[in-house]
Amino acid sequence: MSGGSKLAVLGAGSWGTTFAKILADAQPELSVELWGRRAEVVAQINRDHRNPNYLPGIDLPHNILASTDVESVLSGAALVVLAVPAQSLRPQLAAWREHLAPDAVVVSLMKGLELGTDARMSEVIAEGLGLPAERIVVVSGPNLAMEIARCEPTASVIACTDESVAHWVASLCTASYFRPYTNTDVVGVEIGGIVKNVIALAVGICEGREMGDNTKASVITRGLAETTRLALALGGESDTMAGLAGLGDLVATCSSPLSRNHSAGRLLGQGLSLDEVNARMTQTAEGIKSGRAVYDLAKKLGVEMPITEAVVAVLAGKLDVDELGPRLLSRELKSEGESA
Amino acid sequence: MSGGSKLAVLGAGSWGTTFAKILADAQPELSVELWGRRAEVVAQINRDHRNPNYLPGIDLPHNILASTDVESVLSGAALVVLAVPAQSLRPQLAAWREHLAPDAVVVSLMKGLELGTDARMSEVIAEGLGLPAERIVVVSGPNLAMEIARCEPTASVIACTDESVAHWVASLCTASYFRPYTNTDVVGVEIGGIVKNVIALAVGICEGREMGDNTKASVITRGLAETTRLALALGGESDTMAGLAGLGDLVATCSSPLSRNHSAGRLLGQGLSLDEVNARMTQTAEGIKSGRAVYDLAKKLGVEMPITEAVVAVLAGKLDVDELGPRLLSRELKSEGESA
Repeated sequence: MSGGSKLAVLGAGSWGTTFAKILADAQPELSVELWGRRAEVVAQINRDHRNPNYLPGIDLPHNILASTDVESVLSGAALVVLAVPAQSLRPQLAAWREHLAPDAVVVSLMKGLELGTDARMSEVIAEGLGLPAERIVVVSGPNLAMEIARCEPTASVIACTDESVAHWVASLCTASYFRPYTNTDVVGVEIGGIVKNVIALAVGICEGREMGDNTKASVITRGLAETTRLALALGGESDTMAGLAGLGDLVATCSSPLSRNHSAGRLLGQGLSLDEVNARMTQTAEGIKSGRAVYDLAKKLGVEMPITEAVVAVLAGKLDVDELGPRLLSRELKSEGESA
Repeated sequence: MSGGSKLAVLGAGSWGTTFAKILADAQPELSVELWGRRAEVVAQINRDHRNPNYLPGIDLPHNILASTDVESVLSGAALVVLAVPAQSLRPQLAAWREHLAPDAVVVSLMKGLELGTDARMSEVIAEGLGLPAERIVVVSGPNLAMEIARCEPTASVIACTDESVAHWVASLCTASYFRPYTNTDVVGVEIGGIVKNVIALAVGICEGREMGDNTKASVITRGLAETTRLALALGGESDTMAGLAGLGDLVATCSSPLSRNHSAGRLLGQGLSLDEVNARMTQTAEGIKSGRAVYDLAKKLGVEMPITEAVVAVLAGKLDVDELGPRLLSRELKSEGESA
């Protein structure tokens, strides 16, 4: 991390492109190299400084240089930010490993659990690139990409087991509209970012059934409680869950019409089937993919996650959306502290 | 509490009338006597079973009997629910005290700190009625009255230092659409209900300035953190603040267009003066009245509450609304756990 000053971002979707913009705005004297799979997207970023499919109407800084050549993008990069779909990360890492600079720090923007292994993205990166924990950083928080791209003030969490590395990444990505806070609880930050997509599906379903803000707030509250139980079981900290990467990200995702998971939930709540919902969305809602893995992980650890369980049952066609809301509220009279 | 079965509600505003409806629906064989100050409101409830000024379009159960005679309403009531404006509670208690049944349990629906004394409503009740803690109950949660009146599923917290009393009240007010949970942390439940009105003003101001969901979620997250610091300093519990009466109520209030505090904040954010905002609202936003008392209490206890401080400064005309958002996010790079 003391080495070169080249910054690389792999993945030119909405969050990858937005993070490249943050870095480019924060470090105007440096180049940010952005790898994209599709030649037409790359050409448009270099020619027009725009990525209209993912960030319509946003002008990108001219010090973002896009490329389809991953080897040249990775070459000599001190910081490598990964923003590719969670489920396709592992096979890509195998191809990238040999091109990574020996002292590069790798940052994950990805939120999801790998299906089959239930591994978090930082764990997939550690295995796939053979990196120690102190060279892996995760970024998460109330970070709707489109709002950041519009330069609306946003706070975020930069987590690494080595706090000095988190500070270094935070110093690189501090822009007038982007305010990072550091944290050493990588597990908590990742779990917050993963489970909120599943809870956002539940909130969306309630909205699709035209339930009100009281119900929605209860689902968010009890959703954060079950997320916290899972994080604690994995070694995360409750303070993280009460912070920007837990509560903050959950509230932003469940409030925003920009959230894919929230929107997908609303469509499910309105009575569309899972296939119809997937057909309507340009990008898949991550919660639909990760929900099952979250539920499996919770079961393995003996953690009660009734909202996740209900969402997974809805996605599998085993629970009607009309049953979801009542099921989440129709428990025995009990003390609030008792589990679920 | 083992005595009579008469239920009384004092205060025929939106929350008082709605809670009378909950009790009447939950206990259809009992009468719920509802005291109102204004003869025309009382007459309309008895004649039309409606309270159109506060709950437009809502049909009230026929076992709600309204009256302007507080002595007859209090006479023999085993449960007395108070829902009057926070700042006028103490003088009214003096007049009610002699009519209270000797073993009555008193429930507070009120959210505010008394100006001048910084006392919570349960403290004002204890002093004004000379009651021990185990006969005072508070109800709070993500409870937008209009949604409950529409029978939308809602969860709530019933708190009393004596858990058996909380359970008794919970059993009386469990309706198909209203699900109470019990708690013994009266302080935490009350503080959550008070400070959320101030945080909702801050969120409203950010919305009025057209800031996005990232900012809003950050203000909610950091707002709950400062609320929790205040509750802990007063002997409350962090689990309460992470629950329905803390996080849940805050999220519902900050999400809903039905919240007066949230709406008042939006008008302030759009550039209206405090006088103009008060002139536009049919009922005063409690956060405008309590904000100063919350800030004074925090200062007395040495608790940092930067969002409350900023809101109080805006209300006093000492901070421009344009400064509020940046001020809440423009702190030094630091670890998330550090205070504020």
